[in-house]
Amino acid sequence: MPVLPHNPDPAFNLTRLSHVVLTSRDLDATRAFYETGLGLEVTGQDAERLYLRALEETSHHSLVFEKADAAPGVCRAVGCRVAQEADLDRAADHLAGLGRAADFVERPFQGRTLRFRDPAGVCVELCATMEQRDSRMQQFHLHRGGRLAFMDHVQINTHDVDATYAFYADLGFRLTEYTTGDGNDEMIAVWLKRKNNTQDLVYSRGPGPRLHHFAYHTPEIANVVHAADVMGALGLGQTMDRPLGRHGIGNAFFCYFRDPDGHRIEIFTSHYTVIDANQAPRRWEIGDTRRSQLWGFPAPRKWFAEATHFDGVDLTQPPPGPGPMTLEEYLARWS
Amino acid sequence: MPVLPHNPDPAFNLTRLSHVVLTSRDLDATRAFYETGLGLEVTGQDAERLYLRALEETSHHSLVFEKADAAPGVCRAVGCRVAQEADLDRAADHLAGLGRAADFVERPFQGRTLRFRDPAGVCVELCATMEQRDSRMQQFHLHRGGRLAFMDHVQINTHDVDATYAFYADLGFRLTEYTTGDGNDEMIAVWLKRKNNTQDLVYSRGPGPRLHHFAYHTPEIANVVHAADVMGALGLGQTMDRPLGRHGIGNAFFCYFRDPDGHRIEIFTSHYTVIDANQAPRRWEIGDTRRSQLWGFPAPRKWFAEATHFDGVDLTQPPPGPGPMTLEEYLARWS
Amino acid sequence: MPVLPHNPDPAFNLTRLSHVVLTSRDLDATRAFYETGLGLEVTGQDAERLYLRALEETSHHSLVFEKADAAPGVCRAVGCRVAQEADLDRAADHLAGLGRAADFVERPFQGRTLRFRDPAGVCVELCATMEQRDSRMQQFHLHRGGRLAFMDHVQINTHDVDATYAFYADLGFRLTEYTTGDGNDEMIAVWLKRKNNTQDLVYSRGPGPRLHHFAYHTPEIANVVHAADVMGALGLGQTMDRPLGRHGIGNAFFCYFRDPDGHRIEIFTSHYTVIDANQAPRRWEIGDTRRSQLWGFPAPRKWFAEATHFDGVDLTQPPPGPGPMTLEEYLARWS
Amino acid sequence: MPVLPHNPDPAFNLTRLSHVVLTSRDLDATRAFYETGLGLEVTGQDAERLYLRALEETSHHSLVFEKADAAPGVCRAVGCRVAQEADLDRAADHLAGLGRAADFVERPFQGRTLRFRDPAGVCVELCATMEQRDSRMQQFHLHRGGRLAFMDHVQINTHDVDATYAFYADLGFRLTEYTTGDGNDEMIAVWLKRKNNTQDLVYSRGPGPRLHHFAYHTPEIANVVHAADVMGALGLGQTMDRPLGRHGIGNAFFCYFRDPDGHRIEIFTSHYTVIDANQAPRRWEIGDTRRSQLWGFPAPRKWFAEATHFDGVDLTQPPPGPGPMTLEEYLARWS
Repeated sequence: MPVLPHNPDPAFNLTRLSHVVLTSRDLDATRAFYETGLGLEVTGQDAERLYLRALEETSHHSLVFEKADAAPGVCRAVGCRVAQEADLDRAADHLAGLGRAADFVERPFQGRTLRFRDPAGVCVELCATMEQRDSRMQQFHLHRGGRLAFMDHVQINTHDVDATYAFYADLGFRLTEYTTGDGNDEMIAVWLKRKNNTQDLVYSRGPGPRLHHFAYHTPEIANVVHAADVMGALGLGQTMDRPLGRHGIGNAFFCYFRDPDGHRIEIFTSHYTVIDANQAPRRWEIGDTRRSQLWGFPAPRKWFAEATHFDGVDLTQPPPGPGPMTLEEYLARWS
Repeated sequence: MPVLPHNPDPAFNLTRLSHVVLTSRDLDATRAFYETGLGLEVTGQDAERLYLRALEETSHHSLVFEKADAAPGVCRAVGCRVAQEADLDRAADHLAGLGRAADFVERPFQGRTLRFRDPAGVCVELCATMEQRDSRMQQFHLHRGGRLAFMDHVQINTHDVDATYAFYADLGFRLTEYTTGDGNDEMIAVWLKRKNNTQDLVYSRGPGPRLHHFAYHTPEIANVVHAADVMGALGLGQTMDRPLGRHGIGNAFFCYFRDPDGHRIEIFTSHYTVIDANQAPRRWEIGDTRRSQLWGFPAPRKWFAEATHFDGVDLTQPPPGPGPMTLEEYLARWS
Repeated sequence: MPVLPHNPDPAFNLTRLSHVVLTSRDLDATRAFYETGLGLEVTGQDAERLYLRALEETSHHSLVFEKADAAPGVCRAVGCRVAQEADLDRAADHLAGLGRAADFVERPFQGRTLRFRDPAGVCVELCATMEQRDSRMQQFHLHRGGRLAFMDHVQINTHDVDATYAFYADLGFRLTEYTTGDGNDEMIAVWLKRKNNTQDLVYSRGPGPRLHHFAYHTPEIANVVHAADVMGALGLGQTMDRPLGRHGIGNAFFCYFRDPDGHRIEIFTSHYTVIDANQAPRRWEIGDTRRSQLWGFPAPRKWFAEATHFDGVDLTQPPPGPGPMTLEEYLARWS
Repeated sequence: MPVLPHNPDPAFNLTRLSHVVLTSRDLDATRAFYETGLGLEVTGQDAERLYLRALEETSHHSLVFEKADAAPGVCRAVGCRVAQEADLDRAADHLAGLGRAADFVERPFQGRTLRFRDPAGVCVELCATMEQRDSRMQQFHLHRGGRLAFMDHVQINTHDVDATYAFYADLGFRLTEYTTGDGNDEMIAVWLKRKNNTQDLVYSRGPGPRLHHFAYHTPEIANVVHAADVMGALGLGQTMDRPLGRHGIGNAFFCYFRDPDGHRIEIFTSHYTVIDANQAPRRWEIGDTRRSQLWGFPAPRKWFAEATHFDGVDLTQPPPGPGPMTLEEYLARWS
């Protein structure tokens, strides 16, 4: 599939990825993981729900956990923000025009919220506003763990990257980086964004829909390392899912963890800015190990294979195709 | 003056501050200062012009020096990017409608470029495209000095903050932080932005128009310190114009230098994101020293008083009003 | 005075600066400053005493506050460690041989402790052991503020640098850096050390004896900045006594604060190692502003003029001599 | 084997690990790896030898490569410094008394140099002085790569940890951390030091003598990451031998590389200080994976199995015993 032209005049103005709604079997264990370990702020908790946000965020939440008995946990929604209330109505009209069901739902602490399923089967919810309160950005004495700054993006596995890419490109999402087959233009993964950096939504080929991970940005390399140290000190070292590395794609210095319900979180630093009309997307081939790790050590098999299912959607298998090298294969080749 | 509503549908889509055009009496001395000292990349130099850019930038330049004999140097243009070529035509129409002269000019390495004067008297030039080439972002062995990442904003003194603010608010610029008089709503300085962080253009009250400084972002605190160390090691320590500090406004960890022609550059880290519709601007009063420095030590008098004139424009004095405390006053109060 | 040869076989083996004993009018306020602000660990507190230590330290305390009504606070002792118990007896003999009074005193949490006055009039106490307990070094979740790692050195004003230098050189202290008059060999300040970096005890000319400051090391530049941010966030920004800078001498990236009783603390990073026999000391002249600040901005007058008195000792004035440039003079010269 | 008492009065005063002498088949390739990649300074090169040192070092070299055709490269000497010239004579006497051959040899840029083999079979050379010249510590514009500060330690495999430990303990080396069997006191690895941090010489059980690695310290976490980034950018990412991690032992944040001749270098930050008489060594059991990596991911098999042979010494196999978990085993257990 070719790179699609960027739609400068989409039907409505979706501005950024905003939040993720997941399930947890034990809200207290989840809270310990994210608050005591990684340093997110708890903005609300009751018997049914736990709300968290990061240091820069003035909105009420960027991460919501709902109590549920499912094991492992599932994802209930990926939330995006639109620019204005009127964009919600335009979105409803647009989705209706596409024959895609969308309904307004109630969400605590959020303004009017419109829910629909995207072509990958992901439940997306849109709102223009969320309850505001001062962030902890300048309450430096309350910074903890990885000093996470803001929710940046999600990566989602889908059986149909092409259809999903086309859907979001039409909504004004711009391709910044992408992975193809080796020597061909088959789209294997697409980094799509509305805000100024390289991604809000990443879709990559795999049994889907599944949430591969969600990611928080932090402003310093040492913060990522400190998060790892804190997790180790708390006896949570085994929750590290992929050790520190540098993605070729997006330039992120990263570390990945799995929470008590198996959800994967990335904390990273060093994104870059993409705004200008004629900045071309960067192309990587699946066989290039620098794609996912500039330094040589690729991700473990588990990192590629496991992901969070979406609530109420069956998995669809993608067409077969080449996959990236795993750490296990890398080590075997070494010997 | 009250906070103006954010115009969600401006006449044309200006996306960000892009570049600054300044004069230099000695392009080689200027090059040494910015390339050897602060770590910018030289993308072109001839007898008349020097072009520089930062690590993330794929566009040809974010800083242009033109050879001139004026001492001290002057500013010839502040450059902004628009989203599409068509936005340039919309801009021309819009400015004509306002009775404001605007003409297309030739600029090397840039697409069509539209030039006009804003209400502050600043010469602004707009373009949609600039020549692209791979950045040095992942050529880590070429990172030098402060590892400057991208041109972020300019701060400009003007005699008429209100008129300038109204002009840019109408163009879709959003107010993120602002300074008022003590206990009143007089606008003394406005942080205006189009991209996702807190500022592209900052206008503050003073004899104007003058360019107070332009600012590059770098991703780590230690990079700002390393820039200072490198400048010291090169015998350029005396060019530091204001020592390391933390702005209350915008949360920037900063350092300021003056180049060989007296132009002031800020290098900083730790901006934050502003995108959502209902995130309110932050208000500061001029008498609050935490505005400009969270830790107590305000800026020297010279930092407030000196700035780069704009080419071909006479200064206009602002109405009298309260000014911030200087370092000299702070030290005198201490004794 | 010339650089003295390093005594490789001193009468006893003093190994490092260990701790400082100060007075406080309000132990709770002192605790808030050092624990909540700068991140030291409280290892003991009762109505009369407060004990603190840093992240790497396994010994019980490196900072002791004794309740007292004196305002401003005074210093009661500078503590040093010796290698073995037997060194205490050798020290007692050696001091007796010099005609210098020394007596063993009881100190909670310390082994046998020998107290004497040095030629500057400073009350020095020596011990070989202190109560041990695991440090917080790998309890990363408990790291706070500036993540201070260990007590590194003290700087003391004295009227007689020469006599003090000779006394400590004879005890095996080695000169690593020093300040002389401009163009002469008058010793104005001496950096003396037993451990592997550049200083344990610094003596500089001034009305004395007074404790100019004590200093903790932290391993990252961003930690020093975070300490400043935390102090600002806690409303303690005005306690900053000298803003961030880089000493030419010792290469320290520093920040200074004054505690509630006026005692001055430096937090710094980037010391360097001095071990080898033929590494020569570095000489600086008093008129060289790079001595105290590589980047140009010298210290405020207050930083040079104020210091903590020692309990029960009258001040002696030094002979007149040249002093370093102050920030006030620097700024005046700028205008 | 029990922890041995620390000998406070050794026969001569060895002060620190100083340098390593290795062979290289291609001095230019070696130079590119260490100078362009990791940022060491070349202080001399001719057809036969290459000398390098780090930023803090005023001595002529801490790393010497001698041209040789052997593949893979071998280690020719581990160099240590003694306090005074007289210590060399005391060392010669002491070694003679032990029936251990030692002879004075000529080494360019070094003072008198005494060579002997230790009980592990390692060729050790001692000198009191080395040619001095100003370091690049404050020439910040010349800092490159990982900004390596000083040579810190070597780790050596030996068939007889007990004998080697006893030999060095008698020379005044102090045990700071150590690994035993699970539930017994068998010494599997010993961290031995003379200078103020946790190690100069580390001996661990394995076919020996082999140099497992030598290690340079750098003062910031981000420097270790930058070294990895630079190596990746130079196409040397595949030389990374073990990815970023945090050792439980010694608290080092580390990364390991293999040079063109297969020699392994560690770059690390965050050592800690050990000076006081009654600070007890830390004990770890071989089965505790936090020993080598606080976060869970142990080292690849290759990291444990491969090491540099010493010139002219045959390998001796150690008695069989338990080994640590490898990354391969860790990943297999995960699946």
